[in-house]
Amino acid sequence: MSKTYYLPQGNEVELFKAAAGMNLPVLIKGPTGCGKTRFVEAMGEELGRDVYTVVCHDDLSAADLVGRHLIDENGTYWQDGPLTKAVRHGGICYLDEIIEARKDTTVVLHSLADYRRVLPIDRTGEVITAHPDFMLVVSYNPGYQNVLKGMKPSTKQRFISLTFNYPKAEIETEVIVKESGVDQKIAQKLVAIAGEIRQLSDSDIQEAVSTRLLIYAGKLIAHGFDPYQACIHSIVESLSDEEDVLAVLEKLISLHFIKSIHV
Amino acid sequence: MSKTYYLPQGNEVELFKAAAGMNLPVLIKGPTGCGKTRFVEAMGEELGRDVYTVVCHDDLSAADLVGRHLIDENGTYWQDGPLTKAVRHGGICYLDEIIEARKDTTVVLHSLADYRRVLPIDRTGEVITAHPDFMLVVSYNPGYQNVLKGMKPSTKQRFISLTFNYPKAEIETEVIVKESGVDQKIAQKLVAIAGEIRQLSDSDIQEAVSTRLLIYAGKLIAHGFDPYQACIHSIVESLSDEEDVLAVLEKLISLHFIKSIHV
Amino acid sequence: MSKTYYLPQGNEVELFKAAAGMNLPVLIKGPTGCGKTRFVEAMGEELGRDVYTVVCHDDLSAADLVGRHLIDENGTYWQDGPLTKAVRHGGICYLDEIIEARKDTTVVLHSLADYRRVLPIDRTGEVITAHPDFMLVVSYNPGYQNVLKGMKPSTKQRFISLTFNYPKAEIETEVIVKESGVDQKIAQKLVAIAGEIRQLSDSDIQEAVSTRLLIYAGKLIAHGFDPYQACIHSIVESLSDEEDVLAVLEKLISLHFIKSIHV
Amino acid sequence: MSKTYYLPQGNEVELFKAAAGMNLPVLIKGPTGCGKTRFVEAMGEELGRDVYTVVCHDDLSAADLVGRHLIDENGTYWQDGPLTKAVRHGGICYLDEIIEARKDTTVVLHSLADYRRVLPIDRTGEVITAHPDFMLVVSYNPGYQNVLKGMKPSTKQRFISLTFNYPKAEIETEVIVKESGVDQKIAQKLVAIAGEIRQLSDSDIQEAVSTRLLIYAGKLIAHGFDPYQACIHSIVESLSDEEDVLAVLEKLISLHFIKSIHV
Amino acid sequence: MSKTYYLPQGNEVELFKAAAGMNLPVLIKGPTGCGKTRFVEAMGEELGRDVYTVVCHDDLSAADLVGRHLIDENGTYWQDGPLTKAVRHGGICYLDEIIEARKDTTVVLHSLADYRRVLPIDRTGEVITAHPDFMLVVSYNPGYQNVLKGMKPSTKQRFISLTFNYPKAEIETEVIVKESGVDQKIAQKLVAIAGEIRQLSDSDIQEAVSTRLLIYAGKLIAHGFDPYQACIHSIVESLSDEEDVLAVLEKLISLHFIKSIHV
Amino acid sequence: MSKTYYLPQGNEVELFKAAAGMNLPVLIKGPTGCGKTRFVEAMGEELGRDVYTVVCHDDLSAADLVGRHLIDENGTYWQDGPLTKAVRHGGICYLDEIIEARKDTTVVLHSLADYRRVLPIDRTGEVITAHPDFMLVVSYNPGYQNVLKGMKPSTKQRFISLTFNYPKAEIETEVIVKESGVDQKIAQKLVAIAGEIRQLSDSDIQEAVSTRLLIYAGKLIAHGFDPYQACIHSIVESLSDEEDVLAVLEKLISLHFIKSIHV
Repeated sequence: MSKTYYLPQGNEVELFKAAAGMNLPVLIKGPTGCGKTRFVEAMGEELGRDVYTVVCHDDLSAADLVGRHLIDENGTYWQDGPLTKAVRHGGICYLDEIIEARKDTTVVLHSLADYRRVLPIDRTGEVITAHPDFMLVVSYNPGYQNVLKGMKPSTKQRFISLTFNYPKAEIETEVIVKESGVDQKIAQKLVAIAGEIRQLSDSDIQEAVSTRLLIYAGKLIAHGFDPYQACIHSIVESLSDEEDVLAVLEKLISLHFIKSIHV
Repeated sequence: MSKTYYLPQGNEVELFKAAAGMNLPVLIKGPTGCGKTRFVEAMGEELGRDVYTVVCHDDLSAADLVGRHLIDENGTYWQDGPLTKAVRHGGICYLDEIIEARKDTTVVLHSLADYRRVLPIDRTGEVITAHPDFMLVVSYNPGYQNVLKGMKPSTKQRFISLTFNYPKAEIETEVIVKESGVDQKIAQKLVAIAGEIRQLSDSDIQEAVSTRLLIYAGKLIAHGFDPYQACIHSIVESLSDEEDVLAVLEKLISLHFIKSIHV
Repeated sequence: MSKTYYLPQGNEVELFKAAAGMNLPVLIKGPTGCGKTRFVEAMGEELGRDVYTVVCHDDLSAADLVGRHLIDENGTYWQDGPLTKAVRHGGICYLDEIIEARKDTTVVLHSLADYRRVLPIDRTGEVITAHPDFMLVVSYNPGYQNVLKGMKPSTKQRFISLTFNYPKAEIETEVIVKESGVDQKIAQKLVAIAGEIRQLSDSDIQEAVSTRLLIYAGKLIAHGFDPYQACIHSIVESLSDEEDVLAVLEKLISLHFIKSIHV
Repeated sequence: MSKTYYLPQGNEVELFKAAAGMNLPVLIKGPTGCGKTRFVEAMGEELGRDVYTVVCHDDLSAADLVGRHLIDENGTYWQDGPLTKAVRHGGICYLDEIIEARKDTTVVLHSLADYRRVLPIDRTGEVITAHPDFMLVVSYNPGYQNVLKGMKPSTKQRFISLTFNYPKAEIETEVIVKESGVDQKIAQKLVAIAGEIRQLSDSDIQEAVSTRLLIYAGKLIAHGFDPYQACIHSIVESLSDEEDVLAVLEKLISLHFIKSIHV
Repeated sequence: MSKTYYLPQGNEVELFKAAAGMNLPVLIKGPTGCGKTRFVEAMGEELGRDVYTVVCHDDLSAADLVGRHLIDENGTYWQDGPLTKAVRHGGICYLDEIIEARKDTTVVLHSLADYRRVLPIDRTGEVITAHPDFMLVVSYNPGYQNVLKGMKPSTKQRFISLTFNYPKAEIETEVIVKESGVDQKIAQKLVAIAGEIRQLSDSDIQEAVSTRLLIYAGKLIAHGFDPYQACIHSIVESLSDEEDVLAVLEKLISLHFIKSIHV
Repeated sequence: MSKTYYLPQGNEVELFKAAAGMNLPVLIKGPTGCGKTRFVEAMGEELGRDVYTVVCHDDLSAADLVGRHLIDENGTYWQDGPLTKAVRHGGICYLDEIIEARKDTTVVLHSLADYRRVLPIDRTGEVITAHPDFMLVVSYNPGYQNVLKGMKPSTKQRFISLTFNYPKAEIETEVIVKESGVDQKIAQKLVAIAGEIRQLSDSDIQEAVSTRLLIYAGKLIAHGFDPYQACIHSIVESLSDEEDVLAVLEKLISLHFIKSIHV
């Protein structure tokens, strides 16, 4: 009985379960808002494993993953970080946007992501053998990668890879109806708009519209907002600040929903 | 009964209330001094929710938002930051100038700004499910954005967007009269001056004159200052340090108020 | 009864008092050593308010202004910084060379420098409403500004502005006589020298000679030093290390005082 | 009785044992996933010495190797780091990816890697003479080196060097069969694919496919996955994010395994 | 009765005493090893004031000058830094190579170096009025200055300036005889060598030979070393590592002392 | 009775002893592995003084040299660093690779390296006059120097200088025989190889082969390794990772020892 709603799009569920069964770490690639986090949460529920999600960033230190000493009236005591909790007690440790992390963070994963499956904790001298139910999952958006950032091959070549993309039109429509409460017809229009935006070149917008923004538009419409205005506030203004790009996007919306003027 | 004076300019009040009702986070874009902070304060009062305002900057750490351990005679204890307070007890957490913040600050918002609405606190191991009255609001000035700074799409695509601008002439006049105490005629002149300055190109001044500076000019005039001098000290010298730009602005003021010489 | 000697040069005293009366923050622009600090000290005495002066620099943190926790035998206690003292008990907080400060310092000022006049202290959770006698004054030297540093418009547009310059010749002469003890004639010569140096272009010297250096020269002369040597040690060698610029300045001095050779 | 499976490829075992017997430090060069770590683990078991593995990175400090003071109710106490443990009690200290380490880390090794074999610990004032069974082993990938990083000659000229490469075809086939459970024929195909990929130029892929990824592909196939899909998820998507490179690699796989379509 | 040997070269003694008497801060400019430190030490002895010397560098923080909190069994206590000691109890605080210091260090000096003569200590809230015998002296080498470093005009225009140079030949000879124990003739040869080196252009050697190095050469000769070898080890090899520059300098030495070969 | 084996190559022993006797600090320049450390150790034994060696690096702080406060149950106590120990109790403080150190480290040496011979410890307020047997020795490799790093003239002009180089052929042969156990003939071949490598230009290899590496080769040969293979693992692979340079070096080795193939 899964609480998180997830519609499979290919063989990703089988592959994830196989990797889980063979104790192999998994790398998920895909754009913003296409459902990576939701997929991992749903897999965690299906496999009966807790999910420890960490969104990576420049300042995430190894200690944020592994743990640190804290002080109380009896002196220092050790507090496990999310990675150590998953390693010790079993569970999926999911590192979202891994390429944002510093080297010292990713390097901590090496001995967990090869045949050793151990986590040495330098600060305490402990070496933890991973719980049989420990699984390591990382993700990143290939569209963001640049010369300065990117996973080192010595890290990347430790993972089974899965590539996500925006869902197919029928699936995306079904998701929008279910999540926002709009009817089938409105949802189809929103998916059509998304399709057109996703064909614009990279130089126009930094990243194409996510399913999440389409759901936001649907929610505003279901709440009674004018559909054109709903798309402006949910989709258009989230994608760009450039006046000429905004004009293109507004025009594109107006081909599907009658333009209304407000604000 | 609202204490903060706010004059609506479009559908921003309805949209904000709808987002609040549907638990969607809101992003406000707009120039300096156009009333973003005042709007959020007014909405907080109208919705009966406390507003926790944080002005973002380069050195704002995730701990400044989430909280930190402090030490007293019994050892360490945890102190909630402004974000955690709003998440735990309900309230609007308003992050002003979000694009100034470091990545580790914005990344903390991710799990609060999607369907999960949870705040995991790594340091304590606590995972807080947001109070039903928790709302996340962020703002930035699109005019400041540059290649180095800017919200990541994975952050931006989690918000309903609202674009603010300088108020229309009649509204701005009404605000100046109410806030500064000058008469209608002086206020109209100040708004006319603002209109002309706002048409100058970006290469001349970094950002156009805000309503706030017009109110300052009004206050000095209402206090008995010579109108030309009041505009020099409130408007002109706040907009530039370049001699030729100052000369243009002084000339522009002198077309509305008789030039006086002092200092 | 004012202890600090200050000679007004324009409407700066009226403007400062008006701003103080209307609770508006003040920004003073002007070159080095033209009397900005002395003016603020004198105003503090005239208004009966303590002045808390902080010279800003790259490493000044928000905690240096707001305060921090210290530890003694009973654990941590909070110590107000100079800004918090002025906010809590009344007084003028004067931030000299504000454009040298980091963003996190200036951003702390925002809620104090608009209609809210409150100082939220994140570390303690306290929100202090400013004392009626609290006034915020900042200054900078427009000649130093560059692309990397400079006040953000969102900060700058919160202040009434005042521009200082070197005093007029008669006033500067009077100041030198009073402060150094030289006679009127020597003081006039020093002011004449200053006038000529101030007309040199920026490419020659980084910043023109301040009134302070003229007073130093006067003091050395009053102490019995040869006037030419006094000017060399007080004025010339403080303005440049470049041999050709030194030669120009020495020549310029020798037109007013007979050249003597020593060292 | 060795637990770690290792197939020798040349004289590396003799050289390692000789160095161990003569107390000389060893440097291993070689690409990602070619078995450097496994070799050191196997040598440790054969020599009956514990292996302390540290993966180096930008933020690894000397204290992470040497040790640090921690605090408990009796004040500070010293905790040995992995290097100090190996120096004090005997054992192999293996620093993987040494060129990622900061200077202060590598410099700590100098007195251990020449005739002195001592470790001075500045923080405690202790000078430890290395245990007779202490051995220092470092490794790096010559393909990663760049102008900014690289071992200083004064460090490098303290080591006996060993160069690793991908195993020969027969050996690699044997390893894949043993580790993944696929049959000889599939393993040979995987090795053939690897051979072709390893002949692609550097400008196409950052680093060639490791034996580890071939084992992953074998495991997925042994688990029942379609061989083409298994290679896509194990090999292709781990090597590149570029569409044209992906197309080349997919084509290359399809020459060995029938192309299937999924996801 | 002065213990430190110092030979005056111009009016520097009078100027320093005058500045000390009038409470004006002094800035000394001059090349390496020309006797700036010795001069300040001698002045301190003559005026009966302790000298607190601080050599400035990139990492010198304001706390290193002003003081800091330390912890003992009763909690924190404050420890004065060298600047604070001089301010509180009287004495000369001498900051050598001031342009190497960070901004936060020099800015601390501002209120001490103008008419206020106070030192506010932010950390304790104390504002110390300087002892009548407090004097501030700073120095730097104009030859080192560059675009990145340099005193800000707002700092520099607070000081009386003194320019030092290498001593005149007779004085330098006398110093060498007195300090090294060589005879007058050897000393004259060393001074002649120095004169020739000091006429070489900047592109050849980074900075000309100091009196200190001449004294070293004298000491080695007085100790029985061959004069040519003594000059090589004291003068030549301290001035350059470039082979062609070394050749020029060796040639120059050989014109005064017979070339001997050793090493 | 000296335990450390050292063969003098010129007047370095006399000069070092003279400097020690006259309390002058010594600077040793020379390439990697030419025996600088061994020389200082041998001198320490000959003069009966302890040697405190510190290998400098980017992150070495002044506190690492001078000492720091530690905490135990009675509060903080001060622990001398290696420099302070040598200053207080006598001994040679040897700073290897001084140009790698930060400015704040070298600046600490100034008052110890001129006529004052005192070490002021800011943190404790103590000023230590150096023990009569204190001696300061620093070294660096002129081949590493670059525009970013290098000793400041104000530091460098405080030292007597000594230049080391690779030993002459007969001496190097004798050292290899003594240290590795190979016979005279093999040692001569190794020295011949070294001579040829040392004549290669800088663009080929970063730094020429050290005596240390020749000893390693000798040790492997004495242990029974094939001489060609021994040279590959000791010399060739320590000098370069570039394929074409490796080929040149292998060719060069094969002219002295018959090429064997392994690995």
